[in-house]
Amino acid sequence: MENFTFYSPTFFDFGRGTEKDTGKLVKRFGGSKVLLHYGGGSIKKSGLYDRVIASLKAEGVDFVELGGVKPNPRSGLVYEGIELARKEKVDFVLAVGGGSVIDSSKAIAAGVCYDGDFIEFYRSRIVVEEALPVGVVLTIAAAGSEGSPNTVITDEETKIKSGATGEVLRPAFAIMNPELTFTLDPYQTAAGATDIMIHICERYFSNTPECTTTDRLCEALLKTMAYETPRVIQKPDDYEARANIMWAGMVAHNNICGVGREQDWASHHLEHELSALYDVTHGAGLAVIAPAWMKHCVATHPEKFIPFATEVWGVPFDSINPMQTALEGIKRFRDFLDSIGMPASFSQIGAKKDDIPVMVDRIFAKKKTEGHYIELTKEDVTSIYNMVADA
Amino acid sequence: MENFTFYSPTFFDFGRGTEKDTGKLVKRFGGSKVLLHYGGGSIKKSGLYDRVIASLKAEGVDFVELGGVKPNPRSGLVYEGIELARKEKVDFVLAVGGGSVIDSSKAIAAGVCYDGDFIEFYRSRIVVEEALPVGVVLTIAAAGSEGSPNTVITDEETKIKSGATGEVLRPAFAIMNPELTFTLDPYQTAAGATDIMIHICERYFSNTPECTTTDRLCEALLKTMAYETPRVIQKPDDYEARANIMWAGMVAHNNICGVGREQDWASHHLEHELSALYDVTHGAGLAVIAPAWMKHCVATHPEKFIPFATEVWGVPFDSINPMQTALEGIKRFRDFLDSIGMPASFSQIGAKKDDIPVMVDRIFAKKKTEGHYIELTKEDVTSIYNMVADA
Repeated sequence: MENFTFYSPTFFDFGRGTEKDTGKLVKRFGGSKVLLHYGGGSIKKSGLYDRVIASLKAEGVDFVELGGVKPNPRSGLVYEGIELARKEKVDFVLAVGGGSVIDSSKAIAAGVCYDGDFIEFYRSRIVVEEALPVGVVLTIAAAGSEGSPNTVITDEETKIKSGATGEVLRPAFAIMNPELTFTLDPYQTAAGATDIMIHICERYFSNTPECTTTDRLCEALLKTMAYETPRVIQKPDDYEARANIMWAGMVAHNNICGVGREQDWASHHLEHELSALYDVTHGAGLAVIAPAWMKHCVATHPEKFIPFATEVWGVPFDSINPMQTALEGIKRFRDFLDSIGMPASFSQIGAKKDDIPVMVDRIFAKKKTEGHYIELTKEDVTSIYNMVADA
Repeated sequence: MENFTFYSPTFFDFGRGTEKDTGKLVKRFGGSKVLLHYGGGSIKKSGLYDRVIASLKAEGVDFVELGGVKPNPRSGLVYEGIELARKEKVDFVLAVGGGSVIDSSKAIAAGVCYDGDFIEFYRSRIVVEEALPVGVVLTIAAAGSEGSPNTVITDEETKIKSGATGEVLRPAFAIMNPELTFTLDPYQTAAGATDIMIHICERYFSNTPECTTTDRLCEALLKTMAYETPRVIQKPDDYEARANIMWAGMVAHNNICGVGREQDWASHHLEHELSALYDVTHGAGLAVIAPAWMKHCVATHPEKFIPFATEVWGVPFDSINPMQTALEGIKRFRDFLDSIGMPASFSQIGAKKDDIPVMVDRIFAKKKTEGHYIELTKEDVTSIYNMVADA
């Protein structure tokens, strides 16, 4: 285990009806004038918008609003948000939505406090040192951004989707009401679940030895997701299953599953190229990429795929042929993704085999290898993309 | 799952040599004059005391000191600490030690800010609303107080050992260097491990249905402890095993394993009476009580003992006789405790059967039932004590 720091100071307010606490929590964490940031009309249709506004008004919290965040959030709206926030002198950004809204809110919160162009945080990986506090009312279990210090934005100028980070970007509070996720369709639900599971896998597939505590925690969450996701696909208003998934999604990404070790993140980076080019739902893109990444890696580096198979997917250990155990684990994961309706190939997400060289070039524009469990070369990445382009 | 809030804002600085960060972290979290609180001479003998002082001095942090904390920390020293802290106008309490030192530090931190007698927090269970910030340099993996909002003190006037709580008592930071635990003897190490495991069990044995995420997290940590503890008993300077235990000990008690459900805590309360009367090491007392509590409960309420057996202890599920599975899990846990040298009976910890009525009366002085997985009556508690008094 390597030395690490872990700091997750977000206040989590979890359960039925918790959005009524929005105004109180904004005040508790220093907000007096809020930029209310959200996506399309769904929060208006569901009544959530009205409940949040009522809660802010009840506490005398002033606000301005900016809707219109799209999945794979864009830099353009962030510039708009920064300008509005400065003009209106807001001191708090309230994200009402999912990962895209939260990530866009974090970008605005950082940009407001920064003299330069906010996009530098993403282009040059400068760590964000100062930001307005961000609060969250979460509407989808997926990105884990409600508990993480990370944000991902698509740079509209370069079409590159990339991340920025900074401990100050951890939300001050996150309101997590599982009921707000009842209306998600099965595809969005399954894509969210996939995102959660891959957040865990990116941390689990590590060469740092002797991280038994975090390994067991990773397996625990993966097992939970494997159990709860089909229940929710079956019954979208199953409160208990929605609740377990929502909480697992936070724990999967606040880094308690990643401390003390090298992490991988190749699957995310390969997927980001798909999202940037074809506007694929992130989790669906991951469903295509991650099992292919696994199939590529297991051949030369099967070690971690064995407990993945036995502990998560209940595969009996084959001591005569351990590789068989490892392969069976990957197969069960792929079967699981199929069973919840997630895609397995380029054709299912509108991606094109011809674009592979472009995607590969973009991944390697600033680095020589990708990922850590195996340090992938251009050839490796090309081969992973080809595996699913041909599927 | 019930509604809950979860807030664990402690900054954890984990790994080799991290005590060098003490001064910087005290300053980061607002300390300029520190009450340095510790136990006996062990931190002086090991050189830790000197390293902490050097780190404080390097950052220009002023300090006064108060040593002498004993296991099962006493109210008397807390009064002394409060007086000293007020006289010297300290603005930060730094605990260098284990659970007893941290709990004593929390009591002082709360007492300094309170006009009344600090012991009221413990006697009357008033929630602590204001306290000086507390920092921790941890020297034993056990109590989990480094990440919890709780403190337990023995009231020297009444001889009652009881707890107080308040979100402000969560430490501002906790420095966790597993090397600092190399010198613990096997008994203290095993008692610490037992305490960690029972912190998980108190949360795991719950009637609140459908907490799959937290259930799997509990099992993950219990498995980790079952794997790592014998390694450390075998090889006290096994850094990796010490590290996994130390981190598991924090996660076991910052309540991530308890959110959203009713918790039990009967074993702790039955043990507190042993500690208060005989000054037993807390973890050793728990090793006597918890398996007896399990044997008592399994007879009428075996449900949760089945995954405890299958998921934690690898007992194959006996579908013809599930009770056999449940009983085998408890047996394996008891065998495990025996294997790490933990006691199983009153005679091994110097407790007396004749005192059982006194202990029972004290437990039920202010309540009619004890615990929640089964609401124990006086007769139940007497029977649990008798089971180990006769052992």
